[in-house]
Amino acid sequence: MFRTHTCGELRINSVNNEVTLAGWVQTIRKFGAITFVDLRDRYGITQLLFGEELNQQLDTNPLGREFVLQATGTVHERSNKNSNIPTGDVEIIVTSFKILNKSAVPPFTIQDDTDGGDDIRMKYRFLDLRRNAVKKNLELRYAVNRATRNYLHQQGFMDIETPFLIKSTPEGARDFVVPSRMNGGQFYALPQSPQTFKQLLMVSGYDRYYQIVKCFRDEDLRADRQPEFTQIDCEMAFVEQEDILNMFEGLIKSIFKEVKGIDYTEKVPRMTWEDAMWNYGNDKPDIRFDWKLLNLKKPSSVYTNKKDSSELITGASFGVFDNAETVVAIAVPGCSDYSRKQTDELIEWVKRPQIGMGGLAFIKCNKDGTYKSSMDKFFNEEKLKAIAAACNASTGDLVLILAGAEERTRKAISELRLEMAERLGYRKKEEFKLVWVLDFPLFEYAEDENRWVARHHPFTSPKPSDIEIMISNDPAIENAAEYLKHPYANIKANAYDMVLNGNEIGGGSIRIFQRELQEKMFAALGMTKEESLHKFSFLLGAFEYGAPPHGGIAFGFDRLCAILGGSESIRDFIAFPKNNAGRDVMLDAPSTIDEKQLVELQIRSTAK
Amino acid sequence: MFRTHTCGELRINSVNNEVTLAGWVQTIRKFGAITFVDLRDRYGITQLLFGEELNQQLDTNPLGREFVLQATGTVHERSNKNSNIPTGDVEIIVTSFKILNKSAVPPFTIQDDTDGGDDIRMKYRFLDLRRNAVKKNLELRYAVNRATRNYLHQQGFMDIETPFLIKSTPEGARDFVVPSRMNGGQFYALPQSPQTFKQLLMVSGYDRYYQIVKCFRDEDLRADRQPEFTQIDCEMAFVEQEDILNMFEGLIKSIFKEVKGIDYTEKVPRMTWEDAMWNYGNDKPDIRFDWKLLNLKKPSSVYTNKKDSSELITGASFGVFDNAETVVAIAVPGCSDYSRKQTDELIEWVKRPQIGMGGLAFIKCNKDGTYKSSMDKFFNEEKLKAIAAACNASTGDLVLILAGAEERTRKAISELRLEMAERLGYRKKEEFKLVWVLDFPLFEYAEDENRWVARHHPFTSPKPSDIEIMISNDPAIENAAEYLKHPYANIKANAYDMVLNGNEIGGGSIRIFQRELQEKMFAALGMTKEESLHKFSFLLGAFEYGAPPHGGIAFGFDRLCAILGGSESIRDFIAFPKNNAGRDVMLDAPSTIDEKQLVELQIRSTAK
Repeated sequence: MFRTHTCGELRINSVNNEVTLAGWVQTIRKFGAITFVDLRDRYGITQLLFGEELNQQLDTNPLGREFVLQATGTVHERSNKNSNIPTGDVEIIVTSFKILNKSAVPPFTIQDDTDGGDDIRMKYRFLDLRRNAVKKNLELRYAVNRATRNYLHQQGFMDIETPFLIKSTPEGARDFVVPSRMNGGQFYALPQSPQTFKQLLMVSGYDRYYQIVKCFRDEDLRADRQPEFTQIDCEMAFVEQEDILNMFEGLIKSIFKEVKGIDYTEKVPRMTWEDAMWNYGNDKPDIRFDWKLLNLKKPSSVYTNKKDSSELITGASFGVFDNAETVVAIAVPGCSDYSRKQTDELIEWVKRPQIGMGGLAFIKCNKDGTYKSSMDKFFNEEKLKAIAAACNASTGDLVLILAGAEERTRKAISELRLEMAERLGYRKKEEFKLVWVLDFPLFEYAEDENRWVARHHPFTSPKPSDIEIMISNDPAIENAAEYLKHPYANIKANAYDMVLNGNEIGGGSIRIFQRELQEKMFAALGMTKEESLHKFSFLLGAFEYGAPPHGGIAFGFDRLCAILGGSESIRDFIAFPKNNAGRDVMLDAPSTIDEKQLVELQIRSTAK
Repeated sequence: MFRTHTCGELRINSVNNEVTLAGWVQTIRKFGAITFVDLRDRYGITQLLFGEELNQQLDTNPLGREFVLQATGTVHERSNKNSNIPTGDVEIIVTSFKILNKSAVPPFTIQDDTDGGDDIRMKYRFLDLRRNAVKKNLELRYAVNRATRNYLHQQGFMDIETPFLIKSTPEGARDFVVPSRMNGGQFYALPQSPQTFKQLLMVSGYDRYYQIVKCFRDEDLRADRQPEFTQIDCEMAFVEQEDILNMFEGLIKSIFKEVKGIDYTEKVPRMTWEDAMWNYGNDKPDIRFDWKLLNLKKPSSVYTNKKDSSELITGASFGVFDNAETVVAIAVPGCSDYSRKQTDELIEWVKRPQIGMGGLAFIKCNKDGTYKSSMDKFFNEEKLKAIAAACNASTGDLVLILAGAEERTRKAISELRLEMAERLGYRKKEEFKLVWVLDFPLFEYAEDENRWVARHHPFTSPKPSDIEIMISNDPAIENAAEYLKHPYANIKANAYDMVLNGNEIGGGSIRIFQRELQEKMFAALGMTKEESLHKFSFLLGAFEYGAPPHGGIAFGFDRLCAILGGSESIRDFIAFPKNNAGRDVMLDAPSTIDEKQLVELQIRSTAK
């Protein structure tokens, strides 16, 4: 060992002990014949004092930032204590030292507020990882890992490793593939998830499976996606949806307790997909604040059971509303005194291409009891008051109203809701609110191919009451324009998402476990019999030999850690992340490979 | 939940309770109007009794093997108890049941002694995994996983995930590569190990890292290799070899305790590589039995410090010995009464191409005190007696002697030693003996390229005393025939292997942490400066910014589990293994992929 103690360990009760520390030089402060050095390691920082004699040695062997230093000396009580660090009561009067390794001047400062930009910190990730802020993220990640394993172990789950070199069955995202040298012309794929393997393990009787496992998707990367990411992957047999919701509500609560010290005792609320879309415009609502939507109109073909408030706007002859498929409003608390400049800015905000609305109407519920609106020409004060009331607006609130095509408008009001909450400080990093979203549609419509695609994945079962609808109807869509009238459009899935602070952190479903229903599902997705057999004969085969009812869930581990750490970016919680072009700029990967490797693999590049 | 209890849970104290079980039909026994069914799940087997009324329902809905059944009934005490299973005191008198899923007749029996051959069991792996024998292996694997994580956590290690899509730096084994769609003509590689990442984490100050992680090597598969395998990967900073040996001796002992209930209290013995080769002919000796070699001669250029016993054979004019580079003997206990047929069979055994010797000499230390040998013509009884004595042979033992070229002969005597021990029952599955093998040569000679290769890997440091030899000598080998005289041939590495029952279960080293020495190493391996920068500039760069002294180890997780489970085959301890051609026969992977995928990836297959 190069040390007797770590740099975070010594306290006042060690005074007079002789100790040896090893670590990195954080700062050097010279006062005449004395030099103070802050020595840093994973555990903390300890102050070293080099007296007159050693100071001369330092003159011939000067230290620098990030030098690796081993120092032996005696623990002394500091006259000038530093209450900001746990070791701040003591310092080491150094009697001998050794420079274990030198360091060039680092390209950025190794501090919480570093002067390094993103690019340079990614290139020198090994230095960025030294910063306390990044270290805390990785420590949090490890704590979540531990808490997850401990809870699942206590619940009888077994960690079973599934293979990484599997078969390519692209469905949804693109596979990364791996050419096989021993099987020329053939390829493995890297798993997008261990989905079919965990189902096979249920068929094998393993009952409660979990894995914290890398998954791979070759997608065009958006800001916060990674080509490789980590899942907490779980599956259970002989369960119904209720069992899974309770089990994994327990997991998340256990993580809150172990990692954040939070007693999350209340029952996680449940919300149907339809209610989430109707009330929040979003299937992953942030419910840290209420702000429900007022639906002043609804499209003809979805949310058929919901009651809208169209009576509040009919007869006003306001063409923008009358001609819109959907009109939705929210009340933003305390913003009735927004200036013209401020409301104009909001209008510009919703007109940005990312939001794509034509405009924004508003009602100010003034503190003097009056109502002022951008639609004064069409609505008298009584009508404005009625809309505001239906919106649950109080005096002093600002009602914002969007009108347009259903999908875009609902998405826009959801974005606006989040934006306003963010601006007003309602999205508190250290407040955590969970919600289960249930009863998703089983299918989505793929316009470009005029066919159904699985909203979740092809192994999700329909609600038991909808199985008959699925089996007895032909999935073919005769009239593309009226796809919503097809019986498949209303089939609900036995699927559930766990949402935390407006982020989907986990999702899963009760699976199909009958061969015939699985075949019907593949057919519904437009697969021919040959295609489904080529891709999934092992699974269909397994279903012939006593498959039990089963279901499961997968959590996005990177995302969960980021939210718990109060960050928007998963990259901050990954030791060696890739950039938006899928590159590791530190390694300089991907890169070209030797011609010899290509020849052995029997492939050729066609890239220019 | 489909059940109130598992099939392994009910005991006599549950009598009269109403319960619901769910599981698989193991056996069906019909006695007139009564049917007994053994219901199986992950936790055990419980007997169900179907009385007269339900029996009629069974006639119309017959059960079959591996059907998935849910049964409700009352727990009764059995009149005819089965003491072989924990639930054997009770049975369930079924009051209602539901067939949750049917099963086709399985292609082999789901029993410990199955009638299924290897191929069919691999194809239907999901059924093979139901067998108790396979389940026990995966349970053991999970227990080793748990014990490993718990010990390392207690010791302050952090699990940090390293990337799977990295840069191809083939050195030793071949990389699996992954074409990058977003970076045409470029490839990722899958990691052969996280070696360089864990070193970077030490440079980053993480101090104690571990991971249980998949690694990938595209090698031609021998009987018991897998293209993807799992490592327990560990690294520590500010340590010397002694610290690592103690830490990981502790890990293995902790695993023995947690998983096998074995108190492995004795200190793990240490042996230099030279001693291992000299005394056992092998750098991973099985020391469950002593049987040290007697070296009757040694080659001129290795083991120069060892004392051989050539005086015992000189002057006998036995050309076979006189002309051999190496002559080695072992005493096999209790085999002096081997018949001519038996000794002939041994001679044939060493002549097999896998062993490749020309013959075998022996000395029988007969129980009557006489000595009888195949070399009676050349050695009188006194000389035979002296050789036997030097061999530590007792009365009743059989001394076996091989002569030939150094490398082949030493390997052959080692194989013979293991074979005889196996035949005589000295390799007991439930006896475990560990040994550390130390001080390996740093370099090996690659004949075909007339250059040095790293015996361990290019990041292993030489012994501190040998650094000077390495730096001050030119690695080039002028005279290939005399490569052993090159100073590099004698450089010893700061490397160590942990050996369990004759298997290397782990290996590691203290690493190079100085840029200049690392550059010298790359040069010694024949890399040009450009090449080493292209492949490893990130690591060389990292060494410029304060790399601490560090070292680590990696354990072969699959192999460790197999040995603890008393098996020779790692495949039995992997949920979804591949066959010797690298194929997953259940998935039918690898396979061809769509032309569309190839076009997107900008590659073309050149396979016929």
